[in-house]
Amino acid sequence: MSERSPILVLLTADGVEPPPDLDAIREIADVRTATADTLPDTIPGADALLVWDIFSSALADAWSAADSLRWVHVAAAGVDAVLFDDLRRSDVLVTNARGVFDGPIAEYVLACVLAHDKLLHETEEFRRRGQWAHRETLRVAGRRVLVVGTGGIGRATARLLRAVGLEVRGAGRTAREDDPDFGTVIDSAHLAAHLADVDHLVMAAPLTDATRGLLDAAALAALPDSAHVINVGRGALIDQAALTAEITEGRLSAHLDVLVSEPLPDGDPLWTLPGAHVSPHMSGDVVGWRRTLSRQFLDNLRSYAQGVEPGPAVDKRRGYVPGTA
Amino acid sequence: MSERSPILVLLTADGVEPPPDLDAIREIADVRTATADTLPDTIPGADALLVWDIFSSALADAWSAADSLRWVHVAAAGVDAVLFDDLRRSDVLVTNARGVFDGPIAEYVLACVLAHDKLLHETEEFRRRGQWAHRETLRVAGRRVLVVGTGGIGRATARLLRAVGLEVRGAGRTAREDDPDFGTVIDSAHLAAHLADVDHLVMAAPLTDATRGLLDAAALAALPDSAHVINVGRGALIDQAALTAEITEGRLSAHLDVLVSEPLPDGDPLWTLPGAHVSPHMSGDVVGWRRTLSRQFLDNLRSYAQGVEPGPAVDKRRGYVPGTA
Repeated sequence: MSERSPILVLLTADGVEPPPDLDAIREIADVRTATADTLPDTIPGADALLVWDIFSSALADAWSAADSLRWVHVAAAGVDAVLFDDLRRSDVLVTNARGVFDGPIAEYVLACVLAHDKLLHETEEFRRRGQWAHRETLRVAGRRVLVVGTGGIGRATARLLRAVGLEVRGAGRTAREDDPDFGTVIDSAHLAAHLADVDHLVMAAPLTDATRGLLDAAALAALPDSAHVINVGRGALIDQAALTAEITEGRLSAHLDVLVSEPLPDGDPLWTLPGAHVSPHMSGDVVGWRRTLSRQFLDNLRSYAQGVEPGPAVDKRRGYVPGTA
Repeated sequence: MSERSPILVLLTADGVEPPPDLDAIREIADVRTATADTLPDTIPGADALLVWDIFSSALADAWSAADSLRWVHVAAAGVDAVLFDDLRRSDVLVTNARGVFDGPIAEYVLACVLAHDKLLHETEEFRRRGQWAHRETLRVAGRRVLVVGTGGIGRATARLLRAVGLEVRGAGRTAREDDPDFGTVIDSAHLAAHLADVDHLVMAAPLTDATRGLLDAAALAALPDSAHVINVGRGALIDQAALTAEITEGRLSAHLDVLVSEPLPDGDPLWTLPGAHVSPHMSGDVVGWRRTLSRQFLDNLRSYAQGVEPGPAVDKRRGYVPGTA
């Protein structure tokens, strides 16, 4: 790589705070700031792109102008919004915010598991109505969990849930029996065959061609009555209409931090169904998260400026960092 | 003890389901059923009393008629409602539901900790208003907890919170540095001096003369802004009026499963304050809890009928089983 300062484009959006380490980034790189609209005019000659507005798919539209691009860093765990076929076929390196969200999202999943089994939301409903209504809760230890997605987030989730006494299995690309975090991993291509005894189903997979719609109507129907679905991956992992129907019937309930369309559109039944607990894509965003993302990028940028390839690289065909999902 | 079947009085109340093992209990003992009203007429000649209506203080009123009583079993962790001076001074053995609630209440406390730090209740409020409002949550690992009460429930709570990564200390009768579950235990008589760095304060002590009003206005004032109080012990451990004032100001928040007066009276501000999450004394009551209590008593009764003293005994002067608080 060259000895001059790399030219970096910071892809952001109106109202998004810049990386806290922007001054340090400017010491290493010649920084140009762009939004989706200005990216085609900003990216010519740039070596690197920091996708700070993580929901942006602007690079696809600016691709023909990206004449010098060698590296794209996505400040998110999931890179699905950024990937497209020309980028996949190119030599451009893609990295992501690997590891940053593992612990925070694992804690969030545990919060959802406990809120469900200890009836916290229902108790708040009774409180709002001024009703003193004793009910029996569930013992969490021994409850059965299937975590779909055996990457860093899924693994941290499995370890935390096991520490609390739940029985956890995983679902991934390859079935196996000796996984250090999951023990048993079932083949996610045959998900529906493994759902009959699941109390909590945690969706923590990357969104790829292989996982889109993985939890379809047939798989949902294979879940037992009163099963609880938690989605901290991507909305499109689930057939949202089919899940909405199951929640409407009262057969399933869910905590959904990600949705097919975000923000959830006004009037969507998931806003008001008693068994649907939607949250605004915040499960991993603990106080200080933007600084952590910023520092991770800065470390990668320092490597890049010194001629060392940042990593680990996203496998652009698979859509995630191999060995982590 | 005698070879005849013991005479057992089952103290219950209208609407309370009898012990699931009542048939097995009847095989061992001559069972008479009483309510608070009928206890004085029922207890003469009885060897043992099972306090199945755990909120009853009926024995105090029936004491002069308890001419043969040798053993009282309270189907609850806390025996505060049952103890009175004449019983304390007598030779009557008192046992309790030791251990039954430890794991379930520890899980409930963890649920409250996570609901607070992950903003679950606020997120539900935004959902009810149809608002998509991204906010930053707190990393739970590393948060600082003080558990007041080093009995079985406090210990199970400490172990579970530590397993999730929180930093936990205890408060008990004797300060020490080498407790296996807590590490540091501070002297609860000087509680206020140890609250300045507490994120979550868990009240899990028995209610005794030494703990009544332990979390008073001065101690509450010593908690830092945004601290979170969880009470799974007894309502009277806390100056409820002073806590209500702190929550009204928005300085503290709380999950309160026990209250000074239960049910919480209509119109009490704790029903509606946004930072007050009251629940109806249910933290330990997991599906099957009455059967577990029933079996524990049955085991004790079998010992008693064989002439073996049931145990461990409650220290009636202290108000709990020694070595567990």
